[in-house]
Amino acid sequence: MAHTTPLIHQALGLAAQALFLSSPNPRVGCILTDSSGAILGQGFTQQAGGPHAEVMALRDAAAAGRDVRGATAYVTLEPCSHHGRTGPCCDALIAAGIRKVVASVADPNPLVGGQGFERLRAAGVEVEIGPGSEASRELNIGFFSRMVRKTPWVRMKVAASLDGFTALPHGVSQWITSPEARADGHAWRARACAVLTGIGTVLEDDPQLDVREVATPRQPHMVVVDSQLQTPPDARLFAPQRQLFIYAASEHPERQKALEARGATVIHLPGPHGKVDLPAMLRDLAARGVNELHMEAGHKLNGSFAREGLVDEWLTYLAPKLLGSGRGMAALAPLDALDQALALQFRSVDRVGPDLRILARAPGRDQF
Amino acid sequence: MAHTTPLIHQALGLAAQALFLSSPNPRVGCILTDSSGAILGQGFTQQAGGPHAEVMALRDAAAAGRDVRGATAYVTLEPCSHHGRTGPCCDALIAAGIRKVVASVADPNPLVGGQGFERLRAAGVEVEIGPGSEASRELNIGFFSRMVRKTPWVRMKVAASLDGFTALPHGVSQWITSPEARADGHAWRARACAVLTGIGTVLEDDPQLDVREVATPRQPHMVVVDSQLQTPPDARLFAPQRQLFIYAASEHPERQKALEARGATVIHLPGPHGKVDLPAMLRDLAARGVNELHMEAGHKLNGSFAREGLVDEWLTYLAPKLLGSGRGMAALAPLDALDQALALQFRSVDRVGPDLRILARAPGRDQF
Repeated sequence: MAHTTPLIHQALGLAAQALFLSSPNPRVGCILTDSSGAILGQGFTQQAGGPHAEVMALRDAAAAGRDVRGATAYVTLEPCSHHGRTGPCCDALIAAGIRKVVASVADPNPLVGGQGFERLRAAGVEVEIGPGSEASRELNIGFFSRMVRKTPWVRMKVAASLDGFTALPHGVSQWITSPEARADGHAWRARACAVLTGIGTVLEDDPQLDVREVATPRQPHMVVVDSQLQTPPDARLFAPQRQLFIYAASEHPERQKALEARGATVIHLPGPHGKVDLPAMLRDLAARGVNELHMEAGHKLNGSFAREGLVDEWLTYLAPKLLGSGRGMAALAPLDALDQALALQFRSVDRVGPDLRILARAPGRDQF
Repeated sequence: MAHTTPLIHQALGLAAQALFLSSPNPRVGCILTDSSGAILGQGFTQQAGGPHAEVMALRDAAAAGRDVRGATAYVTLEPCSHHGRTGPCCDALIAAGIRKVVASVADPNPLVGGQGFERLRAAGVEVEIGPGSEASRELNIGFFSRMVRKTPWVRMKVAASLDGFTALPHGVSQWITSPEARADGHAWRARACAVLTGIGTVLEDDPQLDVREVATPRQPHMVVVDSQLQTPPDARLFAPQRQLFIYAASEHPERQKALEARGATVIHLPGPHGKVDLPAMLRDLAARGVNELHMEAGHKLNGSFAREGLVDEWLTYLAPKLLGSGRGMAALAPLDALDQALALQFRSVDRVGPDLRILARAPGRDQF
């Protein structure tokens, strides 16, 4: 019992190593110990289709020739009970003779949903649930969101001056923040399943939306909100081995053919006013396996997301400078009273190079 | 020697107790110790006209019946050598038989300017200069500014939403930030010699500009930039025992008479375009003994100060909310390129209730 807290934290540290790796699978760590608390094996979830944390830990112990019969498994998420691309981790733990499982939190996946714990108990394995549950859920906030809400966790990234401007009046925005802040932003791209932008940004900046400033084993998918299908087929977005989803509101068969020929997936989800139905788009993205959706768009699309209550988290970089005028973070309709403001809570503030990184969430937004 | 660092830090702690008290005199602390480092007496500068830190420490020792002959005095600023409203502290230390003086930094006052140290040395007192100099100068940044630059240290306070708006489009600004942030703002008012605002704010908000949310032994003076002398004689600014300086650009003898009848001091400093000559106003305020000038004005006057390069420090409170549109922190002319931005450096970031307090300075601005 005395070992539980440090060992589950160590398992959470392993889970964090899967941050850029395991999507759309959750980030999970596992540690196997003997009765004295000595570590027999450890591991974390690999790339989708690869082994889960429990199997990695069992393999690690086996490779070192350590006997895990009677061992305790510390694992940051309920071991899976279903046959996905890999066999059920429960069965692997049972077959290995694990005596006890300490798990941070139940798997929100309806295919697991407590059945993993039941299966372990039925096989005579002692099960303890709870230590590290908050941290594990937070590390997998996107996975939990997709499983529970059926929509991704939407993280809006903005880079602004201290006085809140994200671009000069004529649109120039490169660069307001520092290279350090941009590299940090790439680390947040790297953990996302997909990076979303709007057609305005595609046409103005022709961005690549890839992860360049930090090392990553995988690139996030790309999503463009493009009501009229104006994405140029020669945009820099198109890249081998990256999925590009373009959401449109109106039919443009010729343009669609040209984009599909370049490898894009075009999805029609018309909403009001000739715009894309954004809530429907989020449901569709979740169905396609997107846990964390990282947004880097202009103030208009940001404003649409904010007005429709679709933003879960604001990842804001503030540069130590004043621009005095220009484009804002998110275009909202002018308010009549201050109590109509979009309310957030600051979650963390950190220095990143000369800039600040401020994380904010709508109150209660993460309670699902 | 081994005692120096902790004792000078202790003296700096005493000096900080004069933060709301000693203006326009510097905040100074003094500790007297015997050769073993035991404290014989301590004190800090009192209200203007009252005793300085050294005299307070000597009195403290005397009151406890402790002999200070041969003692060391740790003092955070050079002891004064001139007869102001009090006698020279040098003479008091010499008369008391102090053997050694450890002082953080030389007094920038041209009436002292090293003469204190000379006088001590001439009397056979050992003098060591330097420990705690940065902290002492920082604590007295306004006093150093007034003495060296002949202008106050200008601290611009703004309260804004995360997206940089200080008021709704129609001007409503009460309240964007929290009661905690407003109380914190009053502590910054309390340390200032004067609080400045513009006629726009006077007419729109009719503010009191006093210190209400924290306890203080003195209230700062008030300054209004009021080119056309439009301050209403019944404005809430007028308060017994507080000095009100109104800077005007044009002559309005009747209005001036009415304002003077209410106790205001009206000063004409016409500049270009019918506006007040702001640099001349700062020189005049320094001549009137203003060390730290605390600004709480609207985006237009803030913009004028920023454009003219008159702001030393930005004291920014950010509330965790988005307004989407409204008045900004400081109205600047639209920029053509990002490298024309007003460059700052973040100095500190702190949580104040639900809000953030961000202190920023223009690079090198404090090097004078």
